[in-house]
This record gives sequence, C-alpha cells and structure tokens, in this order.
Amino acid sequence: MKYWWVNHKKTSKHEIAGGFLWSPMRKKNGGRNQFYDNMRVASPGDLVISYSHAKISFVGVVADFAIPCPKPPSFEGAGENWDKNNGWMLPVKWQALASPVVPKQKLSEFNEFLPEKYSPLDPVTGNGRENAYLAEVVKDIFDRLLGDLGIDVNAALLSSGSTPLALKDIDEAIEREILNDRSLDSTTQQRLVKSRLGQEAFKKNIYEFESFCRVTKVKTPGLLVASHIKPWRLCISAFERLDGANGLLLAPHVDRLFDRGLISFSDAGGVLVSSRLSNEDVNLLGLAQAFMLEGVEFDSRQIPYLDYHRGNVFLL
Amino acid sequence: MKYWWVNHKKTSKHEIAGGFLWSPMRKKNGGRNQFYDNMRVASPGDLVISYSHAKISFVGVVADFAIPCPKPPSFEGAGENWDKNNGWMLPVKWQALASPVVPKQKLSEFNEFLPEKYSPLDPVTGNGRENAYLAEVVKDIFDRLLGDLGIDVNAALLSSGSTPLALKDIDEAIEREILNDRSLDSTTQQRLVKSRLGQEAFKKNIYEFESFCRVTKVKTPGLLVASHIKPWRLCISAFERLDGANGLLLAPHVDRLFDRGLISFSDAGGVLVSSRLSNEDVNLLGLAQAFMLEGVEFDSRQIPYLDYHRGNVFLL
Repeated sequence: MKYWWVNHKKTSKHEIAGGFLWSPMRKKNGGRNQFYDNMRVASPGDLVISYSHAKISFVGVVADFAIPCPKPPSFEGAGENWDKNNGWMLPVKWQALASPVVPKQKLSEFNEFLPEKYSPLDPVTGNGRENAYLAEVVKDIFDRLLGDLGIDVNAALLSSGSTPLALKDIDEAIEREILNDRSLDSTTQQRLVKSRLGQEAFKKNIYEFESFCRVTKVKTPGLLVASHIKPWRLCISAFERLDGANGLLLAPHVDRLFDRGLISFSDAGGVLVSSRLSNEDVNLLGLAQAFMLEGVEFDSRQIPYLDYHRGNVFLL
Repeated sequence: MKYWWVNHKKTSKHEIAGGFLWSPMRKKNGGRNQFYDNMRVASPGDLVISYSHAKISFVGVVADFAIPCPKPPSFEGAGENWDKNNGWMLPVKWQALASPVVPKQKLSEFNEFLPEKYSPLDPVTGNGRENAYLAEVVKDIFDRLLGDLGIDVNAALLSSGSTPLALKDIDEAIEREILNDRSLDSTTQQRLVKSRLGQEAFKKNIYEFESFCRVTKVKTPGLLVASHIKPWRLCISAFERLDGANGLLLAPHVDRLFDRGLISFSDAGGVLVSSRLSNEDVNLLGLAQAFMLEGVEFDSRQIPYLDYHRGNVFLL
C-alpha cells in the first residue's frame, strides 16, 4: 500500500466531482515525467491527499489501476498545452474532510518527511510546487497532517473493474466526434461507433491476423472478445480503430487482464505478466500453464500497436 | 447442425432488417410452446428459412444462442397479446435469395419431408400454419426448395458473442423508461441506468450475499464482474434490477458463460453445465477442475432468481 499526494491544477473541481485523477502520459516535449508515471504506479487501495488552493479538502482511495484515456471533455480549456489524446485516468473515491487542513500552517510538524526528490511542497516555504502532480509520500505525512482518517478502503475497492462514469462521458464525446466527422461515410461512422458494442466490423478485420485466443487457444467465436491492442479511446484515426492489426481475439478473462494492463505480449508472442497481477489470481483464473507456453509470433503490422500497449497500458 | 423454418408474423420486416428472430418465452396462458422453445435449441451455424406472405425471400445463419430479452420496441403494436417482458431474441444473419421461392408451387417435391408434428406448412394444402413459429425441418427441405445456397456460415459466426444492434435499441428503450419513471428519485434512476456501465450500486448490494467468484474463487474486485442472475433486460422492477440477491460476482470468463446460459447453478451451489458448452472449451478456459468442486449453498433470497435463470436463460 502506497501513499500519494496530488497537486491539482485548475481541474480539481472536475477531478473531485468525477472521482478520478487525470494526467497526460508525457511532457509536452515527449519526455517522461515521474509525476505522470506515478499514475501507473498507484494501485487500488492506495490513499491520496488532494491538495488545491493551498489546502487539503479531500482524501481519496485509489479505486482501480490507471486507465489510458484522452483528456476529459469537462476540462475544457484547462491544460491546453497537454497532449490531449494520451493520458491516464486514475479512478479515486474522494471523501471530504470535516475541516480542510492548510499544510503550510503545520509545516514544521511534517516537513522532515517530505521526499528529497519529487516533493509536492517546498520543504522550506511550505508552498505547493507547480511542476508536481502525483507525488509519492510516506505514511507519516498522512499521520501528522490528518491524524486517523477512518476511511473505508474496502468500499472504494468495490468499484474497481467497473467503468467510471467519467469514462462514459469521454466515450460519448468520442462517438459524437465520429458522427460529426464529415470525411467519414455513414457506414464507416456506424462501424467506428458500433465497434464498441457491435464489434462486428472490427472483429472481422482481426480474423485476418488472429483466429483464436493466443493465451488459452479458445477458438469458439462466442467465447472470444475483440480486444483493441492500442485502446479504442486513444486511437487517433478511423483507420486505427478498425485496423485488424490493432486487435486480438481473447477469452473474456484474458481480455480483462490485457485491457487493464495486467498482461502484455513480447513480439515473439510470449506473455508478459505485470508485477501487479498476483500469482494467486493467475492460478485461480487457471492461466498458470497457458502463460508458460511458447507464443505465436506477431505479424509486423501488429508490432507498433503492441509497442504502444507495452509502453503505455502494461502496468509497471 | 440443425435446419429451421420460421413462419414470420407481422414482424418479418423488423426481424430481417434487425438481424434476429424474436418470440415470447411462453404462450399467453403461461404454457410451453415447442415453436418458442426451439429458439433456445437453435445454435450458432444452424440455417433458417424465412417464410412470410407465402414465400421464402431470405435464408439466414444463426449467429449466436438465443438471448433473453423483452419485445423489441420496433414491433410496436404487433403481437399485442404476447407477454412483452419475457422473450428470446435469436441473432440471425439474413441473406436475400436472388429470386423468392413459393413453396406451395413445389409442394409435391418436398411435402414428404415435412415433420409430422410441428410442421410449418400444411402438407396437403401447402399453406403456412398460423400457430407455427420456429420449426425444425430436415436438410432435404432446404435441398429440394432452395438447391445449393453457397452461404458463408463462418462469416455469420464471427459476430457471435457480440451485442446485436437490436439489443442496443431495447436497452436504450429500457433506459428511457427508467428515466421517465416519476416514481423513482433521480439517484435511483441513475443507479438503475448506471448499473449496466457503472455497476457500482448493484455490485455493492451483491457483496451482502457474495464476496468472490463462486466458480474460480477469485476475490480481487477488479477481476470480478457484477452479473445479474435474472437478466437486467428482463427485470420487472427497480427492486429486481438493484437487488443484491439478484447478482453474482464472477470472473469475466465465468460471467460470459453464465450470461449466455452455458452454465447455471443448483440451489446447493453446484455448477450446471449446458450440453452446448464443449468439454474442449471448458478445458481451454481452465475451468474443468473448478466445475467439479462442491458449491457454496445459495441464500433463500437468491433462489427465485436462480430458478428464473435455470428455466429461461440456461440453454437446453
């Protein structure tokens, strides 16, 4: 279990009301940013301090692993210079504090516990650091600043694995965009939108590359899910959304693991297992043997999508 | 592989355009009807003759097992005396014949192959039987009436396991009804609609009865799906849709099997396996051992829902 501190930008209102945190995947120049990478390090059950306008008004429980997704439409103008197409949403169950805490007023009580690197606050002035977003802190920070929180972590976990409402808004915004795109004929539009529900056109395209679940070897069509390698939400074109090379046919439990970044594949087809997936769950899901089998090598057209999955979806 | 003949009622247009067949589950008096029960006997890959207005204009491939669902809103006034809340939708990929066939004109060539019981046509007059809906016929009927069809069965199968568009319409109609129901406060309305996407309120209620997947014993919340026992679409009240006793927490592959009627449970908690689920698939899904374990007995409040599942969802 880890402890986190987020310095909200202008979007705190939306993040609190929507039950999540959102950051771009990379800096404007394409480089990595530890505060963004932390989004993928956070796990269900971790605790988060929400710091905004110099005070802490909310504390949250991470409700699920980060989900790759574009900038939420509710952010509107905020974060204009972010790459709006590639971000991570971290589902968080927020809880309002009975009375907000102003860390600067208690600085001497906890500043010795601030991390040397990637601190959310300046340990001398007690001001929030502008470049910080999601920072890891130690439990002592929570204890000194907030005392006993009495947060029900389990209640927050119940929602993990379900689709956060904020994601539904994002999906609807994407679908509206597709339906307003006049460069697409109406059949293509329907396929792009349907591809989430109907899946048909996409699934048919995948069959040119795959004909069974790579992990379990199941080939009964009704037991296979057409799974995007680069997530549907992050595809930048109609071509990517419908490209058969961007899809796998997976049994439903394998699809869940792949979609949530708990497994990925090497170019040679071997299963990569995230450290966040427990051996116990692998065994209970009956996948231990299947994970050991030699894989089926991927087609060269599938590799760029796999690269994306390993780099941005697969959990560190 | 089986061969079927459907005598459409007034709804042929909607069934052909929508890519399905729909029948009530029971007769008006609540009794069983072989023509309706056949909906659950049809399997992906079976062929269907569409007979309407005394001629055959379409032939179809069954694309998936029947899905329990209410009467499609597109039927409007048709079938007014049917139980509109309890029916089966059978996904079918239709293909128009180059030239329609009038069976009555060829009666002598095939009437010897009509079944004695549950025939779709009168073998003497060649007229369609009004009480017939989905009737099983022998391959000779297809051969004599239609010759070599050259239908691509595999193409139709690709869509199995995906949600037919017609179901999306039904779900949207149900959601509109919920949002227009003034006896419900807005939080309840959102929970009822959300329960399909967000699942949260429902999942929380289920935890009062279940805390892990009954089949695999997985307990990690992010790997569990909140699955309705009596399907969401067929629930007759807000209470049923949100009732924790009407839900199970299942690993994603087990959820798929349960949702599609390929497995069910005895009151004592033992797994019932449909004859339509192959041993090969059970083995590949890694469930063979789990299916043999002694089950966890159900709570008495769960039993009526299980009864419904065994009677109307579990495939014969």
